[in-house]
Amino acid sequence: GVLSELRSICGEDNVSVGEAIREQHGRDESVHRCCPPDVVVFPHCVEEVSALAKVCHKHRLPIVPFGTGTGLEGGVSAVKGGVCLSLRKMDQVLDLHQEDFDVTVEPGVTRKALNAYLRDTGLWFPVDPGADASLCGMAATSASGTNAVRYGTMKENVLNLEVVLADGTIIHTAGKGRHPRKTSAGFNLTNLFVGSEGTLGILTKTTLRLYGIPEAIMSAVCSFPTVQAAVDSTVQILQSGVPIARIEFLDDVMIDACNKFSSLSYPVTPTLFLEFHGSERSLQEQVKTTEDITQSNGGSDFQWALDTETRNLLWKARHDAWYAALALRPGCKAYATDVCVPLSRLPQIIVETKQDLIENRVTGPIAGHVGDGNFHCLIVLDPSDPEEVQRVHLFTERLARRALTMAGTCTGEHGGLGKRALLCEEVGHTTMQVMYSLKQMLDPKSLMNPGK
Amino acid sequence: GVLSELRSICGEDNVSVGEAIREQHGRDESVHRCCPPDVVVFPHCVEEVSALAKVCHKHRLPIVPFGTGTGLEGGVSAVKGGVCLSLRKMDQVLDLHQEDFDVTVEPGVTRKALNAYLRDTGLWFPVDPGADASLCGMAATSASGTNAVRYGTMKENVLNLEVVLADGTIIHTAGKGRHPRKTSAGFNLTNLFVGSEGTLGILTKTTLRLYGIPEAIMSAVCSFPTVQAAVDSTVQILQSGVPIARIEFLDDVMIDACNKFSSLSYPVTPTLFLEFHGSERSLQEQVKTTEDITQSNGGSDFQWALDTETRNLLWKARHDAWYAALALRPGCKAYATDVCVPLSRLPQIIVETKQDLIENRVTGPIAGHVGDGNFHCLIVLDPSDPEEVQRVHLFTERLARRALTMAGTCTGEHGGLGKRALLCEEVGHTTMQVMYSLKQMLDPKSLMNPGK
Repeated sequence: GVLSELRSICGEDNVSVGEAIREQHGRDESVHRCCPPDVVVFPHCVEEVSALAKVCHKHRLPIVPFGTGTGLEGGVSAVKGGVCLSLRKMDQVLDLHQEDFDVTVEPGVTRKALNAYLRDTGLWFPVDPGADASLCGMAATSASGTNAVRYGTMKENVLNLEVVLADGTIIHTAGKGRHPRKTSAGFNLTNLFVGSEGTLGILTKTTLRLYGIPEAIMSAVCSFPTVQAAVDSTVQILQSGVPIARIEFLDDVMIDACNKFSSLSYPVTPTLFLEFHGSERSLQEQVKTTEDITQSNGGSDFQWALDTETRNLLWKARHDAWYAALALRPGCKAYATDVCVPLSRLPQIIVETKQDLIENRVTGPIAGHVGDGNFHCLIVLDPSDPEEVQRVHLFTERLARRALTMAGTCTGEHGGLGKRALLCEEVGHTTMQVMYSLKQMLDPKSLMNPGK
Repeated sequence: GVLSELRSICGEDNVSVGEAIREQHGRDESVHRCCPPDVVVFPHCVEEVSALAKVCHKHRLPIVPFGTGTGLEGGVSAVKGGVCLSLRKMDQVLDLHQEDFDVTVEPGVTRKALNAYLRDTGLWFPVDPGADASLCGMAATSASGTNAVRYGTMKENVLNLEVVLADGTIIHTAGKGRHPRKTSAGFNLTNLFVGSEGTLGILTKTTLRLYGIPEAIMSAVCSFPTVQAAVDSTVQILQSGVPIARIEFLDDVMIDACNKFSSLSYPVTPTLFLEFHGSERSLQEQVKTTEDITQSNGGSDFQWALDTETRNLLWKARHDAWYAALALRPGCKAYATDVCVPLSRLPQIIVETKQDLIENRVTGPIAGHVGDGNFHCLIVLDPSDPEEVQRVHLFTERLARRALTMAGTCTGEHGGLGKRALLCEEVGHTTMQVMYSLKQMLDPKSLMNPGK
C-alpha cells in the first residue's frame, strides 16, 4: 500500500527499503545511537516532496528530512522509524543574482558545491560549519561555524525559504521568488524555520545572501602561556572593533590532537587560529591592533599562513578537530558539548571547564568559536564503560548549568537530541509552551522529525 | 466594572478616559485616520501589563500597545477601540553589559534616551529610523532606517524579548535574563515577535546588541546629473564592498523641500547623503573608492560635513524629510510608500517611479535607504479632493506592483495598515494561511492590535 504510493511518486528506483538504507545513515562515531528509518525516498522536485508528505500525513508516518547527515547532534536519527526524505537528488543551483549578492539553491547543494559554482563570480557564501553540509540542512539547523563572528550565522544569511509543511502544503516564507534585502511583510516566517531542525517542515529551497570575496586574506596562529591569556585576548580583540573574520580557540589537548592527526607541529599550549579579511591596507591595521593585544597578554609572535595552500591546511586541521579528537582514543565514540555565553564570561567558563575536565578525568579537547562566546568540548568516551559514561554525563550537566548560570545557552549552534531537558530550564516553562503550540500548529500529527 | 478593575491594577491616576486621551494620540498629519481608544492605561511594570492583559482577555477588549506613536503607518490606531497600553512609564535602562556589548531596556526608553545613557561608555545603538522612537516600538515594527546598510535592522539587533501574550502570560523569547550572541535553543521566537507590530503580544523588555562608537565618522553630500547616475553609484559602492554606514538618496524635489525646510542650499538635483564609519586610515580608503565611483558616474565633488554639528544638521535635514514634504503643500496630509527591491533593480524602479509621479501629477518627493534597495515616496495630498486621492491610490498600487514584479516587497520597513491586501499577493495564499494560524494560536480572541 504505502510503498507503492511512495514509488508511484518518485519512481521505483528512488524508494529504498532494508539493506539499501544503511548506506544513507549517520556518522557512526557519534554517541547518539543511530536509528535507521523504515524507508528512504529520493524525490526530484518540490512537487514530489509535497506528494510524499501528503502520503505520510495520510498514513501518519514520521518524516525525517535528510541533507548530508553531517550534523553532530543526532538531528537525522529516525528515532520513531518512518520515511527518510533524502534530498540529495535536488542539487541544482538556481537563480544566481550576482549584482544582488544572492542565490537560491535546492536542498542537495552543499556549501562547497555552491562555492565551487561561484568560483568565477568574485562572490562566496561564508558560513562554514566545517563539514561539507547541505545549505538547506545548514538553514534547518541554523548552522554557524568559524566565520560567524564576521558574517553571522544562517539566521542572518537566509533571505527566503521554500518549505513543505507536514500536510504537504508548499509555502515561501518571504513570497515566491522574492529576494529583497529587507522586508516587513507579515510575520518573519523565514527565521521561524531557520533552526527548526526539520521539526516544522521540509526545506526545499533556500535563498542566501552572498558576499564579495575579500581582496586579501591572511591567517595566523598565536600560542599563549595560559587558557586565560588566549581567551582574554579574544575578548579584547572583539572589543577593540577589529572586524576579525575567524578567531578559533584550541586548548593544549586539542592542539596536540590536531598536531598528531594533521601532521602539524604547533606548540602544545592554548592557541588561537586567526583570520583577517579586507583590503591590503585594512589588513595591516587589523593585524597591528591584534598583535598589540596578543603580545600584551603574553602571546607568541604570529605564525603566518599567507598562501592559499598553507591557509587551507590550517583550517582543514581545525575542521578535522572532531576526527583528531576521536583519534586520541581509537575505538571510542565522540560527543560535542556546545555552550555559548556572553563574551565577558568566556574566560571564566573555559578556565573552570578545563579544570573540571582534568579533575574528573574526562577526555575533552576544547575547540571553540570564541568570538561568539561559543565553544565545544569534544568528549571522547568508551560507551561500553558505564562508569565513564556516567562521569561524562555529570560533566556535561555541570557544564550546561555553568553556562545557564552565566546568562548563556546550553546550545550555541548544534541544537539536537541531547538537550531537550535543559531547554525548558533555559527558556522557561511559558516559552516552552509557545514552542509546543507552534509545533502543534504546523505539525498537528507530530510527524516531522519526531523526538527532536 | 472594567474601569475599576483597570484602576485597581495601575492606580486611579494611570487610567485615562475621554478628553485626556486625545493628547496621547497620533501624528495627525498622516492620511491614516486616527481612531482613539476607549481607555488609556499607564502600567509601571510587566506584572501590571500582564494583569491588564488578563482583564482585557476576560472582557474581550482589544489591546493597542503604545510606545511613542512615531510610526507612519497607523500601527497604533485603535481601529476597534479598546484599551491602549501606554508604556511610557516603564522607562528604565536595565542590565547594561558593557563588555558584552548589550543592554536591556523597558518599553518607554527611546533610541535617543538610550544613546544619551550610553554616552560615556564608548558604545551606541545605531539603528535609526529618524524619529526618536521607543526601542520596543522599533522592535515591534522591525524598524530600520539610515544605518541599516551597515548595522542591520532591529531583526539583526534584538537578542531577547520579554513579551506579554494576549492572555497575560509572560514569556522571554530567549530565556529570562539570557544574552548570548547566538543560540539554537528551540525555535527562534525572538524574530517571530520582532516585526509583529503588537499583533502577537506586548513587548515589555528588549535586549539589544550594542556597537563601539567608531573612531572616526565623516559625512558628505554628492550631487548627480540624473537619478540613474545617483542610484547606479549606490549599487556600485555596495558592490565594491565599501562598508558604508549610511547612503541615502534624495531626488530633486526632496532636496528642494529639504533646502527650504532646513535652510540649506544644496544643488537641486538627485543627491546622495553619505556617511563613513571606521578608523582614520580605513576612512581614507573607503572615501577614495567611493569618490572614484561617484566621479565615474558624473557626481559632483563631495561637500563634507566633518564636525559633529554640521553632520548633525545634515542628518536632521534628512530625518525631517517627512515635515519638509508636508511643508510643500501646507494643509495637506502625507503618506509614505515603502517598497524594497533587490539592489540591481533599484535604478529601474526609481527612474520609472519618478516618471510616473511626473506624468500623474503626484507630489511625492523620493527619499530612500538605497543601500538596502528601499525607498519612500513621501506623497503629499489633499484628502478632501477625491480626484487627487484616487490618482494617488492608483499611483501607489502601480508602485507596489512594480516592486512585486521586480521580486521585491511592498513594505521594506514600515508594515502597518495600508498594505494588507497586497501582502497576500506578495507572500502567497498558503504563506498567509500560516501567518493567520500563528495569529490565531497566540491571540485566539483576536484582541492584540486588531486590524493590523
